Amino acid sequence: MDAASFLKVVREKQPLVHHLTNWVTIYECAQVVKSFGASPVMAHAINEVADMAGIASALVLNIGTLTAEFVDSMKAAARAANKKGAPVVLDVCGAGATAFRDRMSFELIDETKIGVVKGNASEIARIAGRDVRTRGVDAAEVKESLRDIAASLASQRGCVVVITGEEDIVAGSGALYTVNNGHEIMAHVVGTGCMAASVIGTFAGAAPDRLAEAAAAGLACYEVAAELAAEDCGGPGTFNACLFDRIHRLTASAVTARQKVSA
Amino acid sequence: MDAASFLKVVREKQPLVHHLTNWVTIYECAQVVKSFGASPVMAHAINEVADMAGIASALVLNIGTLTAEFVDSMKAAARAANKKGAPVVLDVCGAGATAFRDRMSFELIDETKIGVVKGNASEIARIAGRDVRTRGVDAAEVKESLRDIAASLASQRGCVVVITGEEDIVAGSGALYTVNNGHEIMAHVVGTGCMAASVIGTFAGAAPDRLAEAAAAGLACYEVAAELAAEDCGGPGTFNACLFDRIHRLTASAVTARQKVSA
Amino acid sequence: MDAASFLKVVREKQPLVHHLTNWVTIYECAQVVKSFGASPVMAHAINEVADMAGIASALVLNIGTLTAEFVDSMKAAARAANKKGAPVVLDVCGAGATAFRDRMSFELIDETKIGVVKGNASEIARIAGRDVRTRGVDAAEVKESLRDIAASLASQRGCVVVITGEEDIVAGSGALYTVNNGHEIMAHVVGTGCMAASVIGTFAGAAPDRLAEAAAAGLACYEVAAELAAEDCGGPGTFNACLFDRIHRLTASAVTARQKVSA
Repeated sequence: MDAASFLKVVREKQPLVHHLTNWVTIYECAQVVKSFGASPVMAHAINEVADMAGIASALVLNIGTLTAEFVDSMKAAARAANKKGAPVVLDVCGAGATAFRDRMSFELIDETKIGVVKGNASEIARIAGRDVRTRGVDAAEVKESLRDIAASLASQRGCVVVITGEEDIVAGSGALYTVNNGHEIMAHVVGTGCMAASVIGTFAGAAPDRLAEAAAAGLACYEVAAELAAEDCGGPGTFNACLFDRIHRLTASAVTARQKVSA
Repeated sequence: MDAASFLKVVREKQPLVHHLTNWVTIYECAQVVKSFGASPVMAHAINEVADMAGIASALVLNIGTLTAEFVDSMKAAARAANKKGAPVVLDVCGAGATAFRDRMSFELIDETKIGVVKGNASEIARIAGRDVRTRGVDAAEVKESLRDIAASLASQRGCVVVITGEEDIVAGSGALYTVNNGHEIMAHVVGTGCMAASVIGTFAGAAPDRLAEAAAAGLACYEVAAELAAEDCGGPGTFNACLFDRIHRLTASAVTARQKVSA
Repeated sequence: MDAASFLKVVREKQPLVHHLTNWVTIYECAQVVKSFGASPVMAHAINEVADMAGIASALVLNIGTLTAEFVDSMKAAARAANKKGAPVVLDVCGAGATAFRDRMSFELIDETKIGVVKGNASEIARIAGRDVRTRGVDAAEVKESLRDIAASLASQRGCVVVITGEEDIVAGSGALYTVNNGHEIMAHVVGTGCMAASVIGTFAGAAPDRLAEAAAAGLACYEVAAELAAEDCGGPGTFNACLFDRIHRLTASAVTARQKVSA
């Protein structure tokens, strides 16, 4: 898998990536998309989500600060994206923390066609039916093999499943990639998980017919930039800004030299 | 037009600038106002917007993440500002992307007195009645003369019209200013357009009887600081923080030496 | 009062700190908690606030961008936290600016058990019944002794009262601490007040049986880090990122050497 080739396509196509996301990291999600040369747009009014999804190349849903009304807008946007054939990425942020988050996640997956379900270990384990308790939006320990959980959920739901963590797992129909890039400082920075979903949406929007590869490539590019940003920054506060700078000037050769993607 | 003299008035008067803005760049809008020495306040509850507008020197409306209810609050705030005589700046963020944004923009302009309508090329072209399609919140190409569009919309609506871009255009009754400051990196940073509206609101709040000049002066000061920040920063991620630092210590002499404002 | 010992407890316990906060500084509030090694979670849907509060160690409420519905969610969350015995911190952001903010603040204090009420001088003076007018969210001058206001409000309400400013005042039952750390640049940075409330919540979550001491210790640690960050940064724009870096690597010895807490 050549992540750099996907980066090239993103920069050429500059996909418009429509978000209904949380209010905590909404700036970070927009800027990470823009740093890759693509166009973010955030719009959640029920009156316009279908129209906005209709002009976008991908849709990113993130339930981090969900309400019932917000999920209604997500469903309307997802249906419009489905109709158009644009990929939908769902970040099940905080699944496993409350029954409401679980229920809303299942409704979204049941009622619309989600192309990529993404979360941390305990969020995805919960969506796969395991009895785990996410600690707010921070992952709880999952004893079972994460690769098995991802692969079985992907097979059961017919979508790509991404588990982010020290090692990222991307499971599609018959394919399983792992990405071992990134830096431990990311665990101390708010929004690194949300940004990963936006990056997946950006790469998926540029290569909608190869979702699993696009997700793995996006994660590899994002995390290679993160490794470089970790060298620039002074800690978790200065990290994000350095990350955006590094993504903006990320070269194909840096990606190729550093990517640690296994199929 | 002496932009530095307006900067001086802003710092002396420290206007309170009330915002109903989008959730993506709300921090950036607040910090840009504060960096100029003024006071930002963000409040959108229908229960208090009129009271808050009543103690403010200017009102900034930005429809970037609008809902129908949010626009109701905008109207109530604008009416209170109108009653008091405080200038209202409307950023028609994303106009031309969906019919809902167009309709809400027109309702705001029709039902309240907007002092300054601000947008990028395709947003303003759409408000001026042209058949263009904004790419989410990023400008689409407009073939017609932007100066003509701005001047005719200003005349038709009896307000100041600002089109931001490589060259900014400020059209008022009988006056047309262009501002050629700024830096190309701003196109890669989320929020530079929204911040421009907040800056215009800040300068308008300090000089409410000279809206067009205040808008041009505000843009010139903001973009001179941006030129200096572009020298400090490492890319679009570190840009905003450097911009706020530069605005905070912006000198009259730097503004006078660098301002490229034509009348 | 040994602030460093509280810092140690925070890092050991890593409390989950549930927020219902404003949309302006929500990222900053999350990151400041995370930088101390604790876990922030932001959740406001009426459908889940009680569940989320039920797994958290502390609850932080901030009315900066309140609506009536949002305050309903705050009450539900506070009742769940009360039931569990987890401390609730209320930042009465903008109290004194509008009648609505005053009324909502009083309802929260009357109808739920608030452990710590926090605000700037005019916000707390207003909650204490004084006839002052806050300038949006910026403090107006209060002529009376702030120590007396804090102590009498604490006694009247049976809670801890914190007034932040050049000198911070923490008044509990029979105890009054002052904290004289921090840096003047903080007055030029959006969110330094909101972050203070999140820090108080974090320390209160780690030491719920010593609320006044925890609040004073949290403020001292936060402001010692701010003093160090002021040396690193180039102005109010680069300050926050440097602050998070400094909090992340804050040492007990730096806190002990620099803390200026009087009992």
